[in-house]
Amino acid sequence: MVFKVVLLRNAESRSDTENLFTGWYDSDLSEKGKLEAVRAGKVFQAKGFKFDVVFTSILRRAIHTAWTVLINSENFSMPIVNSWRLNERHYGDLQGLSKDEAVKKHGDKQVDLWRSSFDTSPPEVSTGDARHPSNDSMYAGLPRAALPTAESLQMIEDRVLPYWNDNIAPCVMAGKSVLVVAHGGSLPMICKSLEGMTKEQAVKEVNDMPCGVPLVYELDEKMSFVKKYYLQD
Amino acid sequence: MVFKVVLLRNAESRSDTENLFTGWYDSDLSEKGKLEAVRAGKVFQAKGFKFDVVFTSILRRAIHTAWTVLINSENFSMPIVNSWRLNERHYGDLQGLSKDEAVKKHGDKQVDLWRSSFDTSPPEVSTGDARHPSNDSMYAGLPRAALPTAESLQMIEDRVLPYWNDNIAPCVMAGKSVLVVAHGGSLPMICKSLEGMTKEQAVKEVNDMPCGVPLVYELDEKMSFVKKYYLQD
Repeated sequence: MVFKVVLLRNAESRSDTENLFTGWYDSDLSEKGKLEAVRAGKVFQAKGFKFDVVFTSILRRAIHTAWTVLINSENFSMPIVNSWRLNERHYGDLQGLSKDEAVKKHGDKQVDLWRSSFDTSPPEVSTGDARHPSNDSMYAGLPRAALPTAESLQMIEDRVLPYWNDNIAPCVMAGKSVLVVAHGGSLPMICKSLEGMTKEQAVKEVNDMPCGVPLVYELDEKMSFVKKYYLQD
Repeated sequence: MVFKVVLLRNAESRSDTENLFTGWYDSDLSEKGKLEAVRAGKVFQAKGFKFDVVFTSILRRAIHTAWTVLINSENFSMPIVNSWRLNERHYGDLQGLSKDEAVKKHGDKQVDLWRSSFDTSPPEVSTGDARHPSNDSMYAGLPRAALPTAESLQMIEDRVLPYWNDNIAPCVMAGKSVLVVAHGGSLPMICKSLEGMTKEQAVKEVNDMPCGVPLVYELDEKMSFVKKYYLQD
């Protein structure tokens, strides 16, 4: 038996169009993003994908992508489970800055390092900062100590993998058809685990994963990698 | 403290436009229905409704209505829980017939009785009938004995109230902001319970509840009726 899981990075958001470090800022889809999501849905529909369960982050650009994809592929009656563990990277004090502003404030080399390193975090936000997740009612149910104040890719991996191992992978291993809609920072940590990528390969995956194009992983019964491919129309 | 729950009947479906006994037939929204759902979402948005949890049936016209309403009112990150117990009436052997065909087959008086009586069921479907829920993969997780073959309003009440009492009402009583998106057969059974309606009043509610217009109930701490009103733009 072949086990499959489909990963889908959120379609383009309004903040993407402004070239911002978006992170946990809860930006909705752009008009282009809405069309990308419709297209991804139609690809699933054309190829006959029926999902038994869908996982998303709790950011609206992932949820809006998921609902649009599901409407357009006639997938309505499965459960959808949302978790902050699938959220995009928390960009700390960079969050909300444009790429240009970040370069102006911190210099080219430092910004490049934050984007190309697996282990380096941007500067943290303080607990008084509006961008600290404990000041956002969406995260009111979580202990402050669990909430990130700025994340390296390593820190994303550390929060994503428990959710993959304990919540998503068991559904895949039970033979269910699973869709995960999340982000360019979080999904590659699942890819890293499935393919045994190095840190450098994971950084490349973070920089390369396209918005709104479904990525199918085929796995064996122990969730070891068999093959992967993008679904295109 | 005032406790509130919002009931929303699915927007118009394609089967409605053909004047069919739709019931558990899983018809999607018509173009008019999609606009009704957008409008309901904008009413919530204008009035500042934020939901903590959303309940729907597992029929796509309810789920599509819910997702559209939620996108248009910027309600993204709350859980959505689907249950067959909130489904529309199972119309048994009438399901899929037009109102005219039903009259031709069974006569005016009999069809009127099925629509005006609280206790009378239409003819059942057999287990071999494609319309028997046990032949639909959506209900594969349920015991056949739990699945209806034709329902009176009394039978709908008997399956809806356990779900209201054990799943929805506890959320309302915990102070959560709750939206229930379901159908003209199932939602009035919640109204009946909340208002202590007679069977005759419940039949009238089934015949009168408009599609796609939010109905707000205000309740006291024991879920006794205080007042109700429709939200209109």
